[in-house]
Amino acid sequence: MHIECYAAYDAGKPLEKFRYEPKLLGPWEIEVEVTYCGICHSDIHLIDDDWGISSYPLVPGHEIIGTVTAKGKSVNVLKRSNRVGIGWQCGACMTCEYCLSGRENLCPKKKATCVDQYGGFAQSVRVDSRFAFRLPEELDSESAGPLLCGGITVYSPLRIYGVTAPMKVGVIGIGGLGHFALQFARAFGCEVTAFSSTPEKEKEALKLGAHRFIPSKDTHALRKAKNSLDFIISTVFVDLDWERYLTILKPGGKLCFVGAPENPILVPAHQLIVSQKSVCGSNTGSLHMIREMLDFSARHGITAQTEIMPMSDVNKAIQKVRDNKARYRIVLKN
Amino acid sequence: MHIECYAAYDAGKPLEKFRYEPKLLGPWEIEVEVTYCGICHSDIHLIDDDWGISSYPLVPGHEIIGTVTAKGKSVNVLKRSNRVGIGWQCGACMTCEYCLSGRENLCPKKKATCVDQYGGFAQSVRVDSRFAFRLPEELDSESAGPLLCGGITVYSPLRIYGVTAPMKVGVIGIGGLGHFALQFARAFGCEVTAFSSTPEKEKEALKLGAHRFIPSKDTHALRKAKNSLDFIISTVFVDLDWERYLTILKPGGKLCFVGAPENPILVPAHQLIVSQKSVCGSNTGSLHMIREMLDFSARHGITAQTEIMPMSDVNKAIQKVRDNKARYRIVLKN
Repeated sequence: MHIECYAAYDAGKPLEKFRYEPKLLGPWEIEVEVTYCGICHSDIHLIDDDWGISSYPLVPGHEIIGTVTAKGKSVNVLKRSNRVGIGWQCGACMTCEYCLSGRENLCPKKKATCVDQYGGFAQSVRVDSRFAFRLPEELDSESAGPLLCGGITVYSPLRIYGVTAPMKVGVIGIGGLGHFALQFARAFGCEVTAFSSTPEKEKEALKLGAHRFIPSKDTHALRKAKNSLDFIISTVFVDLDWERYLTILKPGGKLCFVGAPENPILVPAHQLIVSQKSVCGSNTGSLHMIREMLDFSARHGITAQTEIMPMSDVNKAIQKVRDNKARYRIVLKN
Repeated sequence: MHIECYAAYDAGKPLEKFRYEPKLLGPWEIEVEVTYCGICHSDIHLIDDDWGISSYPLVPGHEIIGTVTAKGKSVNVLKRSNRVGIGWQCGACMTCEYCLSGRENLCPKKKATCVDQYGGFAQSVRVDSRFAFRLPEELDSESAGPLLCGGITVYSPLRIYGVTAPMKVGVIGIGGLGHFALQFARAFGCEVTAFSSTPEKEKEALKLGAHRFIPSKDTHALRKAKNSLDFIISTVFVDLDWERYLTILKPGGKLCFVGAPENPILVPAHQLIVSQKSVCGSNTGSLHMIREMLDFSARHGITAQTEIMPMSDVNKAIQKVRDNKARYRIVLKN
């Protein structure tokens, strides 16, 4: 039996058809027939080996929705025909202090779906069942995939850094991650401000949950926003004037990175000291946080805005993401 | 009636005798006869106008211990002959969201003892009674003063950033602030590591509460400490290899500044993201936190290591602080 998929054979190359013979199904493993798979910016970083962790052939895809078709001996929570989602993380040691305290995403031995095993731009995948999540019925298969990576990436920092109603939350970058952040922060009962370099996104940002929109190239508007937000989450990969955003925080506020700018962030310590501010970061989320996020999304109707394209158009779809033309997530369909 | 004190008449100048006539005692004010006053590094910064906020004549001194000798009409908690302490902050609006939520140290209109009024290198001071604190009996007048500034500066961040037993805490710089931080962290039930550029301080650091001592110039020892601490508090004013200290944090850890290095801190965002780390800061503490800290110090026998010098030797004492020869706080006695 072979698994058919799409792989990059070298850094930056278009994907080509690829097939591999899977290993025997391990005791905790399940086989999942992929129905949908979202395209995340991290897939592009992996294809291009931007982080120096890629090995080829590389099968991208870590916003996977599919159906369980087989399971190993130890799998007790999932069964055949269950609809599941799989995200960025696909494994952890399950014995270290982080795993045992429900922070598997901090496990030193954590494994990533497209790095430590083949990803979801495929007909099927074999994964550790403990890192696959049953989907609440209310969630559509077409749009649920991006919750498993883009969604949890912005949901988890809101939770771990203590964002609650009625705080004032800013979201920098209204794309795959940012469009989730607006929805979550709004559903948390926060006052929400969207920052984007694309003024045309204002209308949609407001529809997604923002109470106000600040064009991030409008320095006058940024100056006026001084001292107004409790929490800012940055989803962008470019260098911005971070010192300016620190001034937009209220005393006690936090600036949180989920996208890494190219260059180190310059932080004047006196700004942190005088006003008790923090600069922090976050990476995906733990198992229990992903479950919680899926339930929360189902209850609040939070979902990705997706454009569906056939899996066979994978290269066209990737190009669209590279061109920053996705609004806001492209999902591949088998 | 005149108040006799010591003042700097210009930036960087030695102090000279100075006398001023105080305004009428306001309804919330008390007059305090100063018995002891600690010398904090901030006094030197103010004398030298390092922060551009000094006005002259400047009377330093904001670790004041004294006795209430007069009180205004509205003062209800304190009475004559009470022993009180006064620290860095001497006023706030008491009506903004920060004051009303018990975070007066974040009030945009906060006032500072040696900046917005004359300080405690004096025979007496007049202060807002709400920013004066009764001292628990267990605390000695000789050594309690430094708790009001140095003490609260390191106690408050431990509390607001959630440091609890049995976390692993690092303290960078074993001086006026650091020697308190070691004691507090130890009394919190933490595992405590001292970092100092002065290897001779090892023995004393261990006595103050440290479980281990790392000479901060020993890069091999720093490298070995990777991934070992939950919280690091930096009390120094010099530029260190902050990226290195970020690696010494465990996943989820926090690096907190209470001393401002000269240059901005360079923070690689990916370090914050991948391991969910924070860089943060803190400045003195709120009213209720100061009360709590005084009670905690009394209960645990936490106190400043002081060297007492007569108020008339103020310039000699200041020079000793400038020369980094204080072990660990010099306190002036009237």
